[in-house]
Amino acid sequence: MTMLAAEATGAARRGPGRPRDAEIDGQIIAATLAIIDAGEDVTVSRVVARGGVSRAALYRRWPSLTTLIAQALDVGREVPPEYPEGQDLREAVLASLGLGPDGVAPSAPGYSEERFRQRIRLVMADRALQRAYWASHVSRRRVPLENALRRGIARGELRADLDVEACFDAIAGAAYYQLVVRGERIDDPSTNARLRSALEMIWRGMVAPD
Amino acid sequence: MTMLAAEATGAARRGPGRPRDAEIDGQIIAATLAIIDAGEDVTVSRVVARGGVSRAALYRRWPSLTTLIAQALDVGREVPPEYPEGQDLREAVLASLGLGPDGVAPSAPGYSEERFRQRIRLVMADRALQRAYWASHVSRRRVPLENALRRGIARGELRADLDVEACFDAIAGAAYYQLVVRGERIDDPSTNARLRSALEMIWRGMVAPD
Repeated sequence: MTMLAAEATGAARRGPGRPRDAEIDGQIIAATLAIIDAGEDVTVSRVVARGGVSRAALYRRWPSLTTLIAQALDVGREVPPEYPEGQDLREAVLASLGLGPDGVAPSAPGYSEERFRQRIRLVMADRALQRAYWASHVSRRRVPLENALRRGIARGELRADLDVEACFDAIAGAAYYQLVVRGERIDDPSTNARLRSALEMIWRGMVAPD
Repeated sequence: MTMLAAEATGAARRGPGRPRDAEIDGQIIAATLAIIDAGEDVTVSRVVARGGVSRAALYRRWPSLTTLIAQALDVGREVPPEYPEGQDLREAVLASLGLGPDGVAPSAPGYSEERFRQRIRLVMADRALQRAYWASHVSRRRVPLENALRRGIARGELRADLDVEACFDAIAGAAYYQLVVRGERIDDPSTNARLRSALEMIWRGMVAPD
């Protein structure tokens, strides 16, 4: 929620001063990521020193370190576009995990597995950060697929009683389990095959009975 | 695997010296847990100091700190017993997440949510620990339900092509997602309801077609 507020502030700042502001934003985010990647705790002093910006510039942009860290953790990830009408939903479900016809898609540039592991460590250490990251980033990335699934329910393709949120949790949960519990790499062939089986099973539980 | 070796060593030690050995084991595990709970890095020096044991005693029992930490993280958790023949599989699937008819079961005594969060942080920081913990603890707790599901396949109740491992990953993954991504408490009523929906959906994808 605070991220939305931050974005609204960003929009209000558009105008002659904008390019310089964007540059400072970038310096602050880059400094934050460098501190995270070094395995150090993110503090205002460290960000200010590494980013070469003033404390005032930092505080003006991010109301708390939590929202700054949440935004930094999301660099390289984007909210996917809405699915077009007529999208094959089964394909959309498989593609949501990067499981295309040719196996697993390469991860987003700039979002490595090490960054993922760091993100999980940070959110498990700080529930406020976890909730902020959920509200402002993860939950927003879910929206396009959830919308497509809701249209599938309206068309009668998916079960009328389908719990779309639970559905997404099961799909994404199967993938997180590989990385967080098994400690497998997502592009490992047996991980890939297991995820595909899990998604086919979940898909069978989603479709409307004939 | 190394834990199995450690357990074999334990078995070989049974005899007159056993009670004293068990006491030392307990001191070492308790010291390790205290260090983890304090948020400190587990080192041999710290375990030795806190546990009041010798370095030799520690090294004799655990070939590496990794296996010691893995065992400490598992305190309070047990491999569930095998399911009896005739067990209702749908009930077993729900119960596997502690979702009984009356909602969510209380978590195992001595295994708090904070301990869970610490465990995830530690394994995300150390892939060797993650793989050791998976091989010696998590994967073993999965066996009874997986065996019950395999018997369900043999009986024709579950799909012949069911991937039992993928099945378990989806079930457990939905639960992990609540704690690791959403940052919800597992006994929260809306979390409980969402997990139940996810499991009903997965179950529909598991059963053999009529």
